[in-house]
Parts: sequence; C-alpha cells; structure tokens
Amino acid sequence: MASHYVITRRVEFSETDMAGIVHYSNFFRYMETAEHAFFRSLGFSVVCRPGLPQVGWPRVHASCDYHRPLRFEDEVEVSLTVVEKKSKALTYAFKFRKLNGPEPIEVATGRLTVVCIAHQPDGSMKATTIPKEIADKIDVAVE
Amino acid sequence: MASHYVITRRVEFSETDMAGIVHYSNFFRYMETAEHAFFRSLGFSVVCRPGLPQVGWPRVHASCDYHRPLRFEDEVEVSLTVVEKKSKALTYAFKFRKLNGPEPIEVATGRLTVVCIAHQPDGSMKATTIPKEIADKIDVAVE
Amino acid sequence: MASHYVITRRVEFSETDMAGIVHYSNFFRYMETAEHAFFRSLGFSVVCRPGLPQVGWPRVHASCDYHRPLRFEDEVEVSLTVVEKKSKALTYAFKFRKLNGPEPIEVATGRLTVVCIAHQPDGSMKATTIPKEIADKIDVAVE
Amino acid sequence: MASHYVITRRVEFSETDMAGIVHYSNFFRYMETAEHAFFRSLGFSVVCRPGLPQVGWPRVHASCDYHRPLRFEDEVEVSLTVVEKKSKALTYAFKFRKLNGPEPIEVATGRLTVVCIAHQPDGSMKATTIPKEIADKIDVAVE
Repeated sequence: MASHYVITRRVEFSETDMAGIVHYSNFFRYMETAEHAFFRSLGFSVVCRPGLPQVGWPRVHASCDYHRPLRFEDEVEVSLTVVEKKSKALTYAFKFRKLNGPEPIEVATGRLTVVCIAHQPDGSMKATTIPKEIADKIDVAVE
Repeated sequence: MASHYVITRRVEFSETDMAGIVHYSNFFRYMETAEHAFFRSLGFSVVCRPGLPQVGWPRVHASCDYHRPLRFEDEVEVSLTVVEKKSKALTYAFKFRKLNGPEPIEVATGRLTVVCIAHQPDGSMKATTIPKEIADKIDVAVE
Repeated sequence: MASHYVITRRVEFSETDMAGIVHYSNFFRYMETAEHAFFRSLGFSVVCRPGLPQVGWPRVHASCDYHRPLRFEDEVEVSLTVVEKKSKALTYAFKFRKLNGPEPIEVATGRLTVVCIAHQPDGSMKATTIPKEIADKIDVAVE
Repeated sequence: MASHYVITRRVEFSETDMAGIVHYSNFFRYMETAEHAFFRSLGFSVVCRPGLPQVGWPRVHASCDYHRPLRFEDEVEVSLTVVEKKSKALTYAFKFRKLNGPEPIEVATGRLTVVCIAHQPDGSMKATTIPKEIADKIDVAVE
C-alpha cells in the first residue's frame, strides 16, 4: 500500500507571470500532476480507461500556502502524502521544495480533497464508494 | 449571412509571462474566444448542445504573426473574418488591435482553419459536411 | 471606501478540461481577475504604474471549495469581499455563482490572502505597509 | 554546433479541454519548452542571467498544423530543428510524435520564428544581432 509519491519538474516559461515568478494558480496544476503520477504508479488512471474502474475524481477543496517564489527553470520537487482516506474521498497534503539552490528550500505547501464519482447517464456526476481495487492500494500516511 | 465578428477583452495578469507581455500562446486562445462568440451570435455553439447540430470543430492549422507586444490591462480588439468556406472546413483571419493607446494599433494577425467533425461511437472524430443550417449562416468576406 | 466588487464572465473553451468542466485551477484565475478589477475600480493597479504606488501583491494563501461544476459558456458571477485588512496584508472572500440557469446557483467559494510588497534592488520582494492612499480606499466588509 | 534537440513529455490533465484532447494552444507551449531546453543544452538561457548574454527572444511568427489529436497521459516527443539563422533571428521547425502507441505517430508539425532583442531602458525591446557566443553554437540543419 502506498501513501506517498514524489515528482520533480522544471518551471516552464509559460508558467511564469509578469511578476517574474510562477503564477500562483500553477501550483494547483503541479499538485494534480503529482496526484496523477501517483495513480499511474498504482496501475490506475484518474480518468476512465478500458479495464480500469470507471470513476472520476473531481476536487471539492484545494488550498495552497506560498512561502517563497518559484522562478523560470527552477527545479521543483512536489511530494504528495495521503493524509485522509474516507469511503468516498481522499485528501492529499503537498510540499513544494526548490531543489536548485545551495540546499532544498520549502517554497509552498498545499492540500487537495478529491471525491470519487461515477458518471451518470445524464452527464452529471455522483459520489460513489472508492472501488476496492483502488482503495486497497492507498494508505493514509502515519505522520 | 455573417462573415465578420469582433470582440474586445482586457489582458489578464495570468496571461502575461516573465517578459512582462502576453504569452504568445494566448493569442490562440483569444482567436478561439472570438470564434466561439461568432458561433453564439449565429445561434449555435462550437460544442454539441441538445437541439443543435452534433458536430465539433477541431483545428487543423493555426498561425500568428506578432508585431507588437500586449501587456497587462491592455484592451484588445479581436476581429474575426471568414476568409474561406469549404464543404467541411472554415478558415478565419484575425486582427488584434490594442485599443487603449492614443489610437488603435495593430499588434498581431492570425489565421485558423477548422474542420467540421462528427464524433464516432469509438470516440474518434471524422470530418463531415458542415450542417446546412450552419453553412447557410456563414459567408466568406469580400476582401 | 469599498469592500465589495462583482464581475461576471463567460467560461471559455480553453478553461475546460477533458472532464467537460472548468479546470479547478482556473477558479484561482477568476478570483484574481475580480481582485484586479476591484483595484482598477479604486483607481489603482496591482502592478507598478507611473504615478501610482510602487508595490506588488503576491499571494500567501489561496483556497477554494467546489460545490458544483462550471461548464463551457456558463456565465459566472465572481463576487469579492474584503474580509480582513492588516497593515501589510488583505484577505478577500469570493463567491462564485452560475447565472445562466433557472436561478443563480452558488458553485464555489474561495479565499485569498495577499501581502503588499516593495520590489528590492536585488530583485527580491519585501513586505511593506500598504500605502495610505490605497489603504484609505479599502474597507473590511461588515458581515 | 547544434541544430537539433528532442524532448519528450507526458500530456497533463490540465492541458486537455472538454473535447478530450490537448487544447491546440498548448502545442505552442510544448514548442517553447523544447526551444528552452535546447538553449540550456548549449549553456544559455532564453532569459537574462548574470554572466550570460543580456538578450531576449520574443516570437514574431508561430504556426502549427494538426494531424491527429493528443490525449491525457500520451507521451509526446517534440523535436526541434533550426531551419533558418539570420543575424537577428532564428526559425525552428518542430515535429510532434506520439510515442505510446504501437509505433510512433506524427501528430503535428510547427514553426517558430524568434527575434533576438535587447531590453531598452524605457522597457521596450529592440532587435539586436545574436551575440557571437550564442550564434557560434547554433547551426542550420542540412535537410
């Protein structure tokens, strides 16, 4: 069972804004990229794939606290930790660290709560129990 | 029949990059926004809506020539002109003008070719003749 | 003195994702757009302009709770309320309402804390007291 | 001397749109990411860095032809080739290939012309000769 996953990425030019730093909305894209890589590492996808559970994972809560800016070409580590697991929802905590300085610096922390849903015939989404094959592979971290 | 449509928008902070100007990829988002408003003005949508033709409009060609930069809070006019109309495709020309200076300045021109497609049962897309009710409302501009 | 500001916007195609709804990161862009319009309404800009206070407003906290999805071409109202005003920081609360249904529906709420900074000669940013001419125009809402 | 560079990346969820495919504007972000990695591979950066030439590279032309769609989690190869080198400008050609199918498939081709500029004291940009140390490292591909 897994409760932790880490990715690194390099800040792209289009992710910066005229203040010369990564636009604050992009930290939420970085969080999601870590989440999706976590799912892939377990053999699943956050989207419906043939042969995999037909569920989706819309976000119900997202937050981020920004301590220091990230800049173009910075190398950033995004570490995901599962901090809560309910029957129909997961909550992840994230730490962002800039790796390309003299030593790693924490630049931000974040949190994301996602709900497991099944797509309804009318196009709407309905919360559903996390499929057992997924739930069995995800564990809450002991902090 | 219509062959022309104009929108204006104000440059948003998140559309700028660390060079202090609108990121070049966003001009393509601006073009598309004008295209979609053009479709709405005709009573249609570029996406499938109940009661409207079930077609989509993927892009097959896009280009932009940049003459001057756009900056945060600039007011920009995006004018769309239909320059080619084939049985299964449309080509639009775009002019971008900055409105908030002493006088309007052309900052960029662009071009977009879109193909009319029908979604296939297997999820793929297939080019199809533009539905008559749409084609009847769109005209090529006399230049 | 002002403590409240409202904008409306229409969801753009490029703001949606493959789930068919507005990508959750874009709610943070919407918040910011309301904030910037609020500043303009007071005669200021969030960026340095000649003749205006030379300060910037990086974000230190951002959060959003999502109740219902937004979809392409939805008309959304973003209302900003100043809920906290410190010597060097402001906190805004946001409500997102979808306007194009039978009646307005709240789709999300958000919160943003921004710090007033002065750009230092070495390119770094340092928290500074909100300039009096700005602070005098902004009031905390009585809830 | 170098005239070619290749990167690979995995399509992120936030890069898709409600049509279920990568939004067409993102191909321009992918091109740029390849360009910037190419510059890093030569020991430079497209932005001003201490000890490196103080020039920038705004785009004057960008185009893309789309042959097939890219989807979430697709692995895409972006190959850059220098096809023109003038005293103040470079033109790159790009090929996009999807790698995660039975065999690689070309999904798009693109082209980008960038101009070497020096930032002026008033904030404007002026075209300038490509610094020799950069020009000496970049070669036009023999096609």
